[in-house]
Amino acid sequence: MALIVQKYGGTSVGNPERIKNVAKRVAKFHAQGHQVVVVVSAMSGETNKLIALAKEIQANPDPRELDQICSTGEQVTIGLLSMALKAIGVPARSYTGGQVKVLTDSTFTKARILSIDESNMRADLDAGKVVVVAGFQGVDANGNITTLGRGGSDTSGVALAAALKADECQIYTDVDGVYTTDPRVVPEAKKLDTITFEEMLEMASLGSKVLQIRSVEFAGKYKVKLRVLSSFQDEGEGTLITVEEDKNMEQPIISGIAFNRDEAKLTMLGVPDTPGIAYQILGAIADANIDVDMIIQNVGHDGTTDFSFTVNRGDFAKAQAILETVKATLGAREITGDNKICKVSAVGVGMRSHPGVASKMFKALADEGINIQMISTSEIKISVVLDEKYLELAVRVLHRTFGLDQ
Amino acid sequence: MALIVQKYGGTSVGNPERIKNVAKRVAKFHAQGHQVVVVVSAMSGETNKLIALAKEIQANPDPRELDQICSTGEQVTIGLLSMALKAIGVPARSYTGGQVKVLTDSTFTKARILSIDESNMRADLDAGKVVVVAGFQGVDANGNITTLGRGGSDTSGVALAAALKADECQIYTDVDGVYTTDPRVVPEAKKLDTITFEEMLEMASLGSKVLQIRSVEFAGKYKVKLRVLSSFQDEGEGTLITVEEDKNMEQPIISGIAFNRDEAKLTMLGVPDTPGIAYQILGAIADANIDVDMIIQNVGHDGTTDFSFTVNRGDFAKAQAILETVKATLGAREITGDNKICKVSAVGVGMRSHPGVASKMFKALADEGINIQMISTSEIKISVVLDEKYLELAVRVLHRTFGLDQ
Repeated sequence: MALIVQKYGGTSVGNPERIKNVAKRVAKFHAQGHQVVVVVSAMSGETNKLIALAKEIQANPDPRELDQICSTGEQVTIGLLSMALKAIGVPARSYTGGQVKVLTDSTFTKARILSIDESNMRADLDAGKVVVVAGFQGVDANGNITTLGRGGSDTSGVALAAALKADECQIYTDVDGVYTTDPRVVPEAKKLDTITFEEMLEMASLGSKVLQIRSVEFAGKYKVKLRVLSSFQDEGEGTLITVEEDKNMEQPIISGIAFNRDEAKLTMLGVPDTPGIAYQILGAIADANIDVDMIIQNVGHDGTTDFSFTVNRGDFAKAQAILETVKATLGAREITGDNKICKVSAVGVGMRSHPGVASKMFKALADEGINIQMISTSEIKISVVLDEKYLELAVRVLHRTFGLDQ
Repeated sequence: MALIVQKYGGTSVGNPERIKNVAKRVAKFHAQGHQVVVVVSAMSGETNKLIALAKEIQANPDPRELDQICSTGEQVTIGLLSMALKAIGVPARSYTGGQVKVLTDSTFTKARILSIDESNMRADLDAGKVVVVAGFQGVDANGNITTLGRGGSDTSGVALAAALKADECQIYTDVDGVYTTDPRVVPEAKKLDTITFEEMLEMASLGSKVLQIRSVEFAGKYKVKLRVLSSFQDEGEGTLITVEEDKNMEQPIISGIAFNRDEAKLTMLGVPDTPGIAYQILGAIADANIDVDMIIQNVGHDGTTDFSFTVNRGDFAKAQAILETVKATLGAREITGDNKICKVSAVGVGMRSHPGVASKMFKALADEGINIQMISTSEIKISVVLDEKYLELAVRVLHRTFGLDQ
């Protein structure tokens, strides 16, 4: 008997028929004697519909009120799934984030989980019930409803698994696992049986849409065994995300090619090359709750340097406006920006022990005439920023270059 | 400066444009220096949509989960209205029933309010904010979300007005006040400037759709000054529901003709005429949470009697099934029922001091050849049960008979 947390995304619960299918799958695990906590998203399209409604009222919706509204999507799903379980004889009970309770900070629309009270859920599980929890949401210390931001249901799932010390956290989605890259771009992409947390973290943060990055961080931190599975297939083991790389196996040098279309780059030119510059620039960006991805500062000359970073494309205009105000303070020369870029990355724990991966990557891109605008590396990934028109070509070339097609 | 509770129904907040109009109306009161608490229903059609969705999953939706789902309709509206207020510069803050908190019992889908914590609202009002509260919902002692049943938003409005000791509770609806009868049936129907709580109670319980009966009971009990107004007209004082009849004015004998199409009658024939019969029959009905309206028991003969009552048409089958089980226990002879009936009532505090109202009413109906199936009277109303086909005719005749056309 195991305690399993299962998370189903919006597509998996997209209509009553699919909700009934989820109930059947949950019932199977319940019948096997497992304790099951199910975390669900809003039915696909619902959250967007609610946001659109809010924007009809207020162009920039008030964040607290937006969370009040958006949290209803998951609240509907938990009720429906609990009914579907009861309808087939499985005792179940739904919980909103506030009812669990999932305590968060008060950063509306992007809240962070502070703690989870497992007592209500534990009592229900011990009584043989399936517990159905609304993902994506929590409640702050003052009882305000908060949401964790897009994709936050994954984080909810992992956080609940951590709080309950679950044996496994299963993320059901519309793909059957983690692939070497997006099969829509490279049809030869292969499903991975396992991937390390570190690799998954790089893959997720770089735009592989399978799992939200925060959920992977959480899972790594709390050693939650995480598995990605398809909610539309009954067979298949999906991809297991492991804490450690398997020492016994021949590691591939590169596990996958990740990419992200949704990027924009900003550069502050001619910044005085003095201590504290990075903080002054990025502090203002962070205060506006804008996530920064790549950060690049090269050696300066003539007492000034150039400072670049990338943000989500949606935050481009906002970030640009902030830089303009910082520019004056710092006495920088100019702000430039480009929101027609993409990022492509080769990810693999194997590159730690294999030199020459970067040069192999740069050569493959050069052979295709693709110009590299920015480069950033970590121990297990190499990322390049390219003109967005090269995205598909670059991904295919790299996928082949690192032998991921075989 | 007054403290006003305003309640807007589903039609009044039926789309973003109408929500913006409500915000403008609220802003006007706020600008005049009044403290305003707004109670809103779900956007028209939303609750029905949610119930339909639930029924696709489970034919008889689990009541707790149904409340979990249905409460989201109002939760969306409060967020939207708060945004609409902020968009025009009025500070506002939304509250779900649970956030207020409106404590109820645990009778899901038909919960009763036990208490209201006014502290959150009071703090916001004192800080100059408009408080926007989700009607129709509350939370039980265990944190489960409950709903008050159809039309419960009126009750929420009055209960909040009582808790806050508001100067007035304004119920905005799609009619501009309480009429002598439904103008769709009698075009000559007149709007009343005032009506007593007692009369309103009889009018509401008899099917005048303007106000939910529980809200009128509440208002009478806690002496809340209640006013019914149109949300689509800027002018007009609506109808004020007063605690006492105006002693100075010439009272009309009859204030209005109420009716209800949505009735069904049940009769248990040949019940042993012994003490406790009524309790044994109606106890079982009450246990099933079915509201009973008229109850009639005439003098018995041969040691047995006939016991009749009316219920909502929707509860007819359920009530019939319960009677069949009680029949055996009581040794009654037969159960008969009819769900093709209606009830028509003449209501007026004036009849206390004017004899002969009943006979005038029965004569008017007899002159039109309308057969009376059941009669029930109170101090201020006379109700008759008729074949439903006579409803319109009977209402028109009585409206004219009691001079309400003038």
